[in-house]
Amino acid sequence: MITKTPKPPYYAVIFSTIRTSIDEGYIEMAERMEELAKEQEGYLGVESARNEVGITISYWSSLDAILKWKNNAEHTVARKLGKELWYKKYQLRICKVEHEYGFEK
Amino acid sequence: MITKTPKPPYYAVIFSTIRTSIDEGYIEMAERMEELAKEQEGYLGVESARNEVGITISYWSSLDAILKWKNNAEHTVARKLGKELWYKKYQLRICKVEHEYGFEK
Repeated sequence: MITKTPKPPYYAVIFSTIRTSIDEGYIEMAERMEELAKEQEGYLGVESARNEVGITISYWSSLDAILKWKNNAEHTVARKLGKELWYKKYQLRICKVEHEYGFEK
Repeated sequence: MITKTPKPPYYAVIFSTIRTSIDEGYIEMAERMEELAKEQEGYLGVESARNEVGITISYWSSLDAILKWKNNAEHTVARKLGKELWYKKYQLRICKVEHEYGFEK
């Protein structure tokens, strides 16, 4: 799904990942984190796809909302497990969305 | 591949797409555009994945570099064909990357 976001500016967190071969608990945790993110104040939506690289982009109303999500206790445990088990490499980028265009048939 | 980007700030163009069922010419054009983008001044790299939604993120040194790429003649033809043939829906977001963290095992 493509997220229906508000008029910019708002924020995007780009999470680009390379997985390990460990699958145990991964899907369950990814689903739980998506569910939990949805409950956070300032959460606007998520887009996700994976081939060799996985890309998950979550959209947020402010930097403060991203910081609160970062400090969420359950999310903090998930990130620790992510480093230990599921991710070989990742890059996380926090971005201010300044312009946006859409097209639909 | 995860792009090795410089210290922020720099720019990201998030291109989120839903494809039509028309495949004719799509792969060739996507490859040509990636090749052409690489030749542009200020191009930093690209990350891409597709499942139900496709996400392509290109990274750029400045807004000016993005604008020049937008105005590239061959890219302009490709975008027109994209709307006519290959994309049912898309959203394009231009973002300033403000913070970045990485992890590697």
